[in-house]
Amino acid sequence: MSKYPVYYEHIHTCKQTGARLGRVHTPHGSFMTPAFMPVGTQASVKGMSPEEVAEMGAGIILSNTYHLWLRPGSEIVRKAGGLHKFMNWKGSVLTDSGGFQVFSLAKPKDITEEGVKFSSHIDGRKLLLTPEKSMEIQNDLGSDIIMAFDECCPYPSEHGYAKRSLERTTRWLERCIDSHKNKDSQALFGIIQGSMYEDLRKISAEQITSFDLPGFAIGGISVGEPKNLFLSMIDCTVPLMPEDKPRYLMGVGSPDYLIEGSLRGVDMFDCVLPTRMGRHGTILTDHGKRIIRDKCFAEDFGPMDPECDCYACRNYPAAYVRHLLKANEMFGLRLCTYHNIYYLLKLMERVRQAIADDSLGDFKENFYKSYYGS
Amino acid sequence: MSKYPVYYEHIHTCKQTGARLGRVHTPHGSFMTPAFMPVGTQASVKGMSPEEVAEMGAGIILSNTYHLWLRPGSEIVRKAGGLHKFMNWKGSVLTDSGGFQVFSLAKPKDITEEGVKFSSHIDGRKLLLTPEKSMEIQNDLGSDIIMAFDECCPYPSEHGYAKRSLERTTRWLERCIDSHKNKDSQALFGIIQGSMYEDLRKISAEQITSFDLPGFAIGGISVGEPKNLFLSMIDCTVPLMPEDKPRYLMGVGSPDYLIEGSLRGVDMFDCVLPTRMGRHGTILTDHGKRIIRDKCFAEDFGPMDPECDCYACRNYPAAYVRHLLKANEMFGLRLCTYHNIYYLLKLMERVRQAIADDSLGDFKENFYKSYYGS
Repeated sequence: MSKYPVYYEHIHTCKQTGARLGRVHTPHGSFMTPAFMPVGTQASVKGMSPEEVAEMGAGIILSNTYHLWLRPGSEIVRKAGGLHKFMNWKGSVLTDSGGFQVFSLAKPKDITEEGVKFSSHIDGRKLLLTPEKSMEIQNDLGSDIIMAFDECCPYPSEHGYAKRSLERTTRWLERCIDSHKNKDSQALFGIIQGSMYEDLRKISAEQITSFDLPGFAIGGISVGEPKNLFLSMIDCTVPLMPEDKPRYLMGVGSPDYLIEGSLRGVDMFDCVLPTRMGRHGTILTDHGKRIIRDKCFAEDFGPMDPECDCYACRNYPAAYVRHLLKANEMFGLRLCTYHNIYYLLKLMERVRQAIADDSLGDFKENFYKSYYGS
Repeated sequence: MSKYPVYYEHIHTCKQTGARLGRVHTPHGSFMTPAFMPVGTQASVKGMSPEEVAEMGAGIILSNTYHLWLRPGSEIVRKAGGLHKFMNWKGSVLTDSGGFQVFSLAKPKDITEEGVKFSSHIDGRKLLLTPEKSMEIQNDLGSDIIMAFDECCPYPSEHGYAKRSLERTTRWLERCIDSHKNKDSQALFGIIQGSMYEDLRKISAEQITSFDLPGFAIGGISVGEPKNLFLSMIDCTVPLMPEDKPRYLMGVGSPDYLIEGSLRGVDMFDCVLPTRMGRHGTILTDHGKRIIRDKCFAEDFGPMDPECDCYACRNYPAAYVRHLLKANEMFGLRLCTYHNIYYLLKLMERVRQAIADDSLGDFKENFYKSYYGS
């Protein structure tokens, strides 16, 4: 089928928008795209069981190299038979490179050509993460898709810094490719950087996609920039990415961004938004966010989201969920988290249906009307 | 079948011990006895979904009048259609009277013939709980079995105090009976007190069982007394309880106490032990407790309890659960809690089988050998 362990199958292009419907195949099954990947930072999608994540319809989850390296240690995961077996997840797994976390912990002087020095957030011990180390850890974890070790520039970054950074990211990608040991079973994706500069995005896209890799990602956006900048960066980057390979937009998960990304030809997304919001007792709906902790739900005996058919909305009155949240009961967080992940997975199902129907533009327009109440 | 909404069906008496196997029928289904009731203090068995509690085999759960009165308020539960509907639990529910909690919050001068004055643990407001109020709340909650408002004496208590207290408990029971509104759908159980005094237990048993009630409970033991005292109090009380009605031993849930109680003819038990231990990362096994957070499980890739076939033990290596606990992941608490409740429910299944086989004495002996490693 493909020379890569992970590959993209194209199904349909939306005549109205050019968005693409497809399927990504991995050693642990396939999933339809555009797809949202729930995040299981520490080898657990917070509050959920793997069965719950699967029954909601997720085919792939994301986990974090940095966190698993520090705790329990990638060697323990390897000895357990890899991340899938360790956490009892039968679907596909993508791991990030750890870059995002260590850059947020490191001081500028600690970033060198070799890698990044930083202090563990758990016990303060000094550690060094390099492209080679990131590959070694991800090889230990055994995830289906592994990400190149890159620098995600903060927003805003100066043009000069962003340029030097993207060039280092390209050199680091070479080192990742050289040290990645499981090319037959784990697909390495390269990451396009370039901060908020169109010229730099073009340079990075050219450099990164020149490598023979099974997939590519857009990194360094959705980092606090205004939405128009976010959109223009996707606009200028996606057309430079190969059509026959999965395209992954990192760290994106709000409903509007998922639709905008899909509309522009992105296949994969991830974000902690649904789990984090769930833990704060807030849920996503077609009409915006609802804060279930609020007093107004105290005697609301209907579902949290009357338009939703998820396990939480089918079985529990909003007043019950509010009670659990106020009483600090774990199950309240479970119900909100369940709803939020389900909501985003269903949203992607609706996006895929709209692509199949050549009407993603209409879908977006209607969704925005409802979501922003205009 | 019976003039009561809840009634006891006798199936078999163990020839070796006299322990009894039976079935308790309630408006929300039946459950085999001796039975352990998981505790859902605030209308949620901590960390678990109702489906999980049911799939483990629980037919009845306990919930707390005091907690639900304060939050969300019993009126809200009533408006939601009662506790079953509010929390989506299809099985039976027993609620305590709130007495245990308010007595632990009240000062001696606040305990009067009328009831107990105390300050809410949530916002400090002054409240008064009386037999009538407890019935009103439990009528609102709609539980299948409701408990009389009683005083559970602390251990140790003086003979004089314990006697005055048990007599007040009897007078309060009369007021409970008079004010209980749903006699057709909710079964009121009386509670035998008498602290650690055999003569007082007899007086209380005589007084309490003289009322025409569907079931009776033993209260005020397992409150910190030594085990021999615990056993002698059950020994002297159970024979005074009617044979044709359920007998409930309140607040008991350690494996050895469950076996000892069953052996002496008790039908129902409840305890927060399995959920509380689970939240601390400790599990119950036939060989005693195992602290899964401990270092020794860091590279243990077998199940937490190799003799257990619960969801947690079937699917997750101990090393994974330990990782989750160390990383403060909610799912770790879920897995330990799941195992503990399952363990106690299975233990009761084994106890019931041993009664059916006329060998509960042998079962106890073997269990103690394994549990205490002797």
